[in-house]
Amino acid sequence: MKYKKITNEDLLYFKNIFGEERVISENEIKSEYAHDELGTVFNYPEVLVKATHKKEISALMKYANLHKIPVTVRGSGTGLVGACVPIYGGVLLDLTLMNKIIELDKTNLTLTVEPGVLIMDIYEYVLKEDLFYGPDPGEKSATIGGTVSTNAGGMRAVKYGVTRDWVRGLEVVLASGEIIKLGGKVVKNASGYSLKDLLIGSEGTLGIVTEIILKLTVKPVKMISLLAPFNSKEEAILAAPKLISNHVIPTAVEFFLNDSLLYSERYLGKKLPHNNYPAYLLLSYDGYHEEVVDKDVRKASEMLINEFNAIDVFLIDTEERRKAIWSVRDGFLEAIKLSTTLIDECDVVLPRAKINEFLTYVDNLSSELKVRIPYFGHLGDGNLHIYFCKDDLDEKKWQETLKRGFLKLYDKAASFGGLVSGEHGIGFAKKEYLKNQLKSEQLTIMRAIKKAFDPHEILNPGKVI
Amino acid sequence: MKYKKITNEDLLYFKNIFGEERVISENEIKSEYAHDELGTVFNYPEVLVKATHKKEISALMKYANLHKIPVTVRGSGTGLVGACVPIYGGVLLDLTLMNKIIELDKTNLTLTVEPGVLIMDIYEYVLKEDLFYGPDPGEKSATIGGTVSTNAGGMRAVKYGVTRDWVRGLEVVLASGEIIKLGGKVVKNASGYSLKDLLIGSEGTLGIVTEIILKLTVKPVKMISLLAPFNSKEEAILAAPKLISNHVIPTAVEFFLNDSLLYSERYLGKKLPHNNYPAYLLLSYDGYHEEVVDKDVRKASEMLINEFNAIDVFLIDTEERRKAIWSVRDGFLEAIKLSTTLIDECDVVLPRAKINEFLTYVDNLSSELKVRIPYFGHLGDGNLHIYFCKDDLDEKKWQETLKRGFLKLYDKAASFGGLVSGEHGIGFAKKEYLKNQLKSEQLTIMRAIKKAFDPHEILNPGKVI
Repeated sequence: MKYKKITNEDLLYFKNIFGEERVISENEIKSEYAHDELGTVFNYPEVLVKATHKKEISALMKYANLHKIPVTVRGSGTGLVGACVPIYGGVLLDLTLMNKIIELDKTNLTLTVEPGVLIMDIYEYVLKEDLFYGPDPGEKSATIGGTVSTNAGGMRAVKYGVTRDWVRGLEVVLASGEIIKLGGKVVKNASGYSLKDLLIGSEGTLGIVTEIILKLTVKPVKMISLLAPFNSKEEAILAAPKLISNHVIPTAVEFFLNDSLLYSERYLGKKLPHNNYPAYLLLSYDGYHEEVVDKDVRKASEMLINEFNAIDVFLIDTEERRKAIWSVRDGFLEAIKLSTTLIDECDVVLPRAKINEFLTYVDNLSSELKVRIPYFGHLGDGNLHIYFCKDDLDEKKWQETLKRGFLKLYDKAASFGGLVSGEHGIGFAKKEYLKNQLKSEQLTIMRAIKKAFDPHEILNPGKVI
Repeated sequence: MKYKKITNEDLLYFKNIFGEERVISENEIKSEYAHDELGTVFNYPEVLVKATHKKEISALMKYANLHKIPVTVRGSGTGLVGACVPIYGGVLLDLTLMNKIIELDKTNLTLTVEPGVLIMDIYEYVLKEDLFYGPDPGEKSATIGGTVSTNAGGMRAVKYGVTRDWVRGLEVVLASGEIIKLGGKVVKNASGYSLKDLLIGSEGTLGIVTEIILKLTVKPVKMISLLAPFNSKEEAILAAPKLISNHVIPTAVEFFLNDSLLYSERYLGKKLPHNNYPAYLLLSYDGYHEEVVDKDVRKASEMLINEFNAIDVFLIDTEERRKAIWSVRDGFLEAIKLSTTLIDECDVVLPRAKINEFLTYVDNLSSELKVRIPYFGHLGDGNLHIYFCKDDLDEKKWQETLKRGFLKLYDKAASFGGLVSGEHGIGFAKKEYLKNQLKSEQLTIMRAIKKAFDPHEILNPGKVI
């Protein structure tokens, strides 16, 4: 692809749109804007602009489309596949200043927000109104726009689904600068092809989301978590689908091994009540009636011990304990990162019934490739997070190991009916693996869809497909 | 569009693929294959073929794509927008023989089915296993493929969502005859553009669905319905969003006026305990604990009477009563059809807060246009079914009234943030109204998407866009 390099004339134009202080160029651009949380995909934009209104974005896109300047959108930069890294330079469009909550509509149970609102701010805002937003991605400082762009999932997907299930409507600036609205406050929609669903998960390659209408629901009155240690990972993993199908649906079913726990305890300086068993399940139950949540939890505890060989069940029923244990869980990624020199991640999603077989394969691969591969996972929805750790490997060996290991992992997952990404997306880092998995007809259709939205391929070029 | 007319040579080719007895042509084609439940969109196919396997469909499409022969897919033909009517002739591909339930996977909680399975057979099959399929479209003799193609909603959308929310994976024969798989048994997916979501609701214009992986959940143990009469439609309508946001989510919130009730009682020869009040809400609550459902229902009853001015609340807690009252509700469409010479339907969906204002507009429009317009609706999700009745209008006057009335209704709905179709789709009958509502950029993108999937426009041509 041939893109126009940004000149002083372009910068002047951008300053007219955004104002002097929201156009940052060359040496003034901080290095954080050259990468995301993954770190390994790295490139500086030619110019960083910070938008505060869709009209600015529309004006930017009209100009960029005319002059063939690439535009990459960025929220908090918490992604793990390099999706927001401007690999062709051009404009990096930061949306974090567009962080207004526009409207809470209590009759329609919707919340209309700008894309730069952090998801933790959304939780807090709606909880105060006794309302609830279902998706719960691990990274609470992600922007809602970022979670829409990757169809983020998170812990509560077992019961509450993923971001897609909670987006009722979108306002989108197209590559041409035109502004369209998709969906709305309505609950049902059978009005032509669902462009809304196409935009969700498209990682900034089809359009720029400038407003999001979220579905809300009534806040559950009680939530209890359970921590259950097991003597083997196989037993822990087998318990999950049985709990889900023989009982009420849990809110979350997280799985981890002793190593993740120890890394995280060390990282946070916190201790869990259990930390010396091989494998753990961390479950949550919630509901609209206290007595029923208690009953569900009692039944789950009995099943865990009597039927599924859990060694013990530790009830987490105070807010303080809940925060403590979930902060340990939320700390896994950071803790694993700190345990090594560099990581790369595989965010594979599998049918729940195939997890055990797959993780045995991962363990064997770790021995075969002589690389440390810690993992944990959203067991309730079959989404695993698997980390290759560089440790003391030299760069060449690391790259070889990564490539060989990832190809094997994704091939194995595909043979089990799994997919390349459950929730972190494709971005730049997983492009080749998606390409390997899809049939050429699917890729051709996806490329034609990209062309339909963005004929000059200026929106986040080089990503997804 | 110029399509090839079907010759004897083509028929021979089709007989080679499908066998002599599953290729029906010319006068042997029954008139039911020339229309759907709407009736007003009417055209015979040149040939009707009945598929039993995806390989046959793949072979058909390869040939049709080469020779530019239109192919229109049909399930039970229960649609209301003419989507399965072969308006350009060509091949009508009947999938009702592909009615096998392929696999119930209890570990992953999925059901894999062929597209011709009737939704009532799916309910029955999974209930026997204590499992549950959420969507509940009114027409139980629809095929699952038909409900996927229109993203059907139904009564339980308030709590359980629509068909889209329950489709985990699709197998699709493309216009080229290639077979692709989208999604799978996995719960999460962030692996490239969601072609699965694009196929859902595309009414047979992008591909032919040959296998569907449905999500299941655990069967609720108890369901109770409530019938609440009101002195005015305004009060009934106001109660719905308050019930939803101040209490647990009901499974269904249906709304109707006295007229629909009387038509349906007459049609079924059944009486309801109440039938002489102006307006009614029919609510359902379900759950996994009997005592909790009882509690929810008690609270809803109290709120209905004390806060929302319901005249009475009639509890429907036996299976016999439940069947009786819901059969009256399910009979509305047929009953309204029988009350007149011809109907046409508006399946508009609105933000819940706008229903009252919209229905007042409908009532005024009825007076203004001097046409009877009965309606009822899924109040919980803002989806209304509004019927223009021809009664004794002559054809010319009827067409004028329809056109004027529909344009006004859809314009009004759009001004409230509503959409053309909540669950019945666009098909042929609502194409112009969708076109009116969408911006030209959206139409251009939708047309490019159609071209990406179906370059020769042979799949259900003349529909949706």
